[in-house]
Amino acid sequence: MTETQTDTVGAGNPSAPTVFFLSDSTGITAETLGNTLLTQFPGHPLERRTIPFITTVEQAHEVVAVIDQLAAAGPRPIVFSTAVSQDVRSVLARSRGHFFDLIGAHLGQLEDALGSSASGQPGQAHGVGDAVRYQSRMAAVEYAIEHDDGQSLRALERAELILIAPSRCGKTPTTMYLALQHGILAANFPLVEEDFASLSLPKPLLPFANKCFGLTSQPVRLSQIRQERRPGSTYASLNQCTFELRNAEDMYRANNVPYVNSASMSVEEISATVLQRMQLHH
Amino acid sequence: MTETQTDTVGAGNPSAPTVFFLSDSTGITAETLGNTLLTQFPGHPLERRTIPFITTVEQAHEVVAVIDQLAAAGPRPIVFSTAVSQDVRSVLARSRGHFFDLIGAHLGQLEDALGSSASGQPGQAHGVGDAVRYQSRMAAVEYAIEHDDGQSLRALERAELILIAPSRCGKTPTTMYLALQHGILAANFPLVEEDFASLSLPKPLLPFANKCFGLTSQPVRLSQIRQERRPGSTYASLNQCTFELRNAEDMYRANNVPYVNSASMSVEEISATVLQRMQLHH
Repeated sequence: MTETQTDTVGAGNPSAPTVFFLSDSTGITAETLGNTLLTQFPGHPLERRTIPFITTVEQAHEVVAVIDQLAAAGPRPIVFSTAVSQDVRSVLARSRGHFFDLIGAHLGQLEDALGSSASGQPGQAHGVGDAVRYQSRMAAVEYAIEHDDGQSLRALERAELILIAPSRCGKTPTTMYLALQHGILAANFPLVEEDFASLSLPKPLLPFANKCFGLTSQPVRLSQIRQERRPGSTYASLNQCTFELRNAEDMYRANNVPYVNSASMSVEEISATVLQRMQLHH
Repeated sequence: MTETQTDTVGAGNPSAPTVFFLSDSTGITAETLGNTLLTQFPGHPLERRTIPFITTVEQAHEVVAVIDQLAAAGPRPIVFSTAVSQDVRSVLARSRGHFFDLIGAHLGQLEDALGSSASGQPGQAHGVGDAVRYQSRMAAVEYAIEHDDGQSLRALERAELILIAPSRCGKTPTTMYLALQHGILAANFPLVEEDFASLSLPKPLLPFANKCFGLTSQPVRLSQIRQERRPGSTYASLNQCTFELRNAEDMYRANNVPYVNSASMSVEEISATVLQRMQLHH
């Protein structure tokens, strides 16, 4: 805990309150819930600062000084905290910002529900934690890189999931997300024009049809994305995109491959959908 | 919202309460805060189920039926919800589980702080949201794959960060995490034996010394990791690992490259440290 990080949203706007995400660990949980709450208030210009690794009372006092300085000069900062230590929390709670104790707010009820006391140890949610689970996530990232875009057909039988789609429908980032966040061994495989000569799956995938999940998109959207990559090409033309997507969807249906239209979805939404539909979860 | 997902932790233990992560969106926020809270209670065997995309009152009733069935047969489930819709929330709140309304608990205070009302729209925190920011994340994933392990020196001047380290210190998954979660244009570059002939940075990195961040590890730990990859090799020997790490650290110090010992850190912790030390944040 020495530096602060600032994003550029609302930077330089003196009337924009600063939102602090404070943690004795990475700050990921504070950012995640804090930002989720803030999406309920669109149109508010905000400055954001994450301060992770606040582990001592002295560091907490330094952070409070920064918050109080801002509070004196402009709008009261908004402070989301996931600090676990009672000592650190009670210092942070005394700043002049609006204080949201995201952990403390729920700990009492959870102690009642589980019939035991909270450990009070700083957040381990984003540490290595369960070493076996952690290593499986790291191995999955390697596997995803090796099997990106049909590059390797080696050890395809180890895959838990094979994402298939025409180029630029979101296969690669979705595969990376599933590997990194969920430790899913995921390969991805591009569908190209030659694959559409018949309705059957590409030959290397035939033994693994039950692991396949398809992505499709909207032709206009796909064409826009491809234009950015290869402007004016046949590859990016609306005709070509329409052809590939229609044929891919026919292929998915003919082979009972579940699929989703990813045109307006984020990788997180595609991933949640894939996990749910394929009943995959670690 | 049709299926549930179950992980295997505590599966088959009839006395282990089931933890539900419920959402009208991806469920990521519910999982993140819920799991953070649960790390305060180590040693409790728990079954976990994420049910995303609960968008209608009918779906909420279906979920409540599942929870109530479990509550009748065993310990009361624990229910973390980030549903935003008032209608959905009030149905979910009437289950026989212990209900944690992670959004509702803070919304009133945040309305006061911001002086306006919550929109009530289902969670957009993990949707595409800001399209420019989203596209920058996707572009960063592509950049990270192209520049993994020193594969490409093209467009290195576009990098915001170049992670350098001997093999198997965590460069690749950290780069992917920073790209996917933060949209950081990050390359990574391996330090090999020949690089240690002098204290200066490898030649391709010389113009970009200020973008470099180093990783180091503990020799014994690194040797273990390398043994898994190439058992009995010189590459994996304790001598070789000690040599490379000592020389890498000397190189970092000689060139004022900030660095961290990643031996016991997760990618999330390494990433938070890199963002903080390099003052990078989008």
